[in-house]
Amino acid sequence: MSVTVLKLGGSVVTEKDSPETVDERRLEEVVSAVEGADRLVLVHGGGSFGHHHAAAHGVSQTAGTHDHEGILAIHRAMKRLNDRVVNALHARDVPALPVHPLSAGRRDHAGGLSHPVSQVATMVNEGFVPVLHGDVIAHAGAGATILSGDDLVVTLAEGLDAERVGLCSTVPGVLDDDGEVIDRIGRIEEVREILGGSDETDVTGGMAAKVEKLLTMDAPASIFGPESVDAFLVGDSPGTLIE
Amino acid sequence: MSVTVLKLGGSVVTEKDSPETVDERRLEEVVSAVEGADRLVLVHGGGSFGHHHAAAHGVSQTAGTHDHEGILAIHRAMKRLNDRVVNALHARDVPALPVHPLSAGRRDHAGGLSHPVSQVATMVNEGFVPVLHGDVIAHAGAGATILSGDDLVVTLAEGLDAERVGLCSTVPGVLDDDGEVIDRIGRIEEVREILGGSDETDVTGGMAAKVEKLLTMDAPASIFGPESVDAFLVGDSPGTLIE
Repeated sequence: MSVTVLKLGGSVVTEKDSPETVDERRLEEVVSAVEGADRLVLVHGGGSFGHHHAAAHGVSQTAGTHDHEGILAIHRAMKRLNDRVVNALHARDVPALPVHPLSAGRRDHAGGLSHPVSQVATMVNEGFVPVLHGDVIAHAGAGATILSGDDLVVTLAEGLDAERVGLCSTVPGVLDDDGEVIDRIGRIEEVREILGGSDETDVTGGMAAKVEKLLTMDAPASIFGPESVDAFLVGDSPGTLIE
Repeated sequence: MSVTVLKLGGSVVTEKDSPETVDERRLEEVVSAVEGADRLVLVHGGGSFGHHHAAAHGVSQTAGTHDHEGILAIHRAMKRLNDRVVNALHARDVPALPVHPLSAGRRDHAGGLSHPVSQVATMVNEGFVPVLHGDVIAHAGAGATILSGDDLVVTLAEGLDAERVGLCSTVPGVLDDDGEVIDRIGRIEEVREILGGSDETDVTGGMAAKVEKLLTMDAPASIFGPESVDAFLVGDSPGTLIE
């Protein structure tokens, strides 16, 4: 259905080190690039809104909780960030509508994610821009676990048969050992070769896992920095192209 | 899956004539009756939160809008009411989790409603009490239209194969011409005979339409007043039984 899925990293739109603080300048920069884009689905991460509460309640993508107050604390923090993103879009007359994954998706006992997309498709067909986000969702046998924005992007892109996927990160793309942006990654072996040797295991693990997920999709994906949202939306492939 | 679906009418939990005002006493009464109930799904109406905004933006169950600010105004008002209901439940240690229909459901071109239930079922199986509500949802060809709490109840009851359905209203049941509660309604012809002759077309039309919808379900439904939530939840059939 020729949809573009664009993810705004949590550390792009929030100040990572201050609890529940939006990076206003960055958000404004990204939102102004989104203005006028057609058939777009947005997803944003948690940044300083979600991760803080998730850590406080000991919830991760695999470690669940049945503590309803903890689940609500995480979910409401993510809704506050989503409100801010939607408001910034409305201020630019982008017809954004919120979509909260806790209301729509679930995980089965094996951890498999299901999230409907027909409501998102109807919004897009009606000219709206759905804005989803990382969230906490019901998980069979585990109570509730964290749904990352990245996993949501993959599920949406597959379900909507997206034409293009963009991930706006704080870095300008996937970097090699010399800190240079890698233009293109086509196979998982390349990721391991390139990213396997780094000392920054956490960051690297995160980026390698991200790239591995994106490689499972039919749609090509680009990873780029905030300054390249414009270029991505007009059809260029800034940063690293993963296909 | 032996689930009970209970709808709290919008005029039960809000003061209908004051914009965005919760009827604290009534909400407390209903919530205390819900305490300890097992395998329960709650739905609440819009009352003085939803209808006011829907009317202001000219949106109904059939008249849609593409005005994203109007849609958001209605949706956010319903979320504020939902927050209040969820908070009241948490204060009694009922493990309530919010589910917002705009995030999950849609209508097709013919107005047919689809709303997933697997996320609701997972919440119930994990011991949570999902709390849904009347809302505005995406509607193919029409932008967005109002989803009534009653329509949502029918869709949930069918999808979850609910054992029992309860509708808590401000009246103690379906009333006949003499103002007496009718014990049981089994066929649509009875509704028309009983309710057809009244002068109060609006109220009657509302109740007749409600009963007609409930008769389409497999599960028996009861319509009763706030004082009977307790009785309904322990297995009695207060008010009017529709089956």
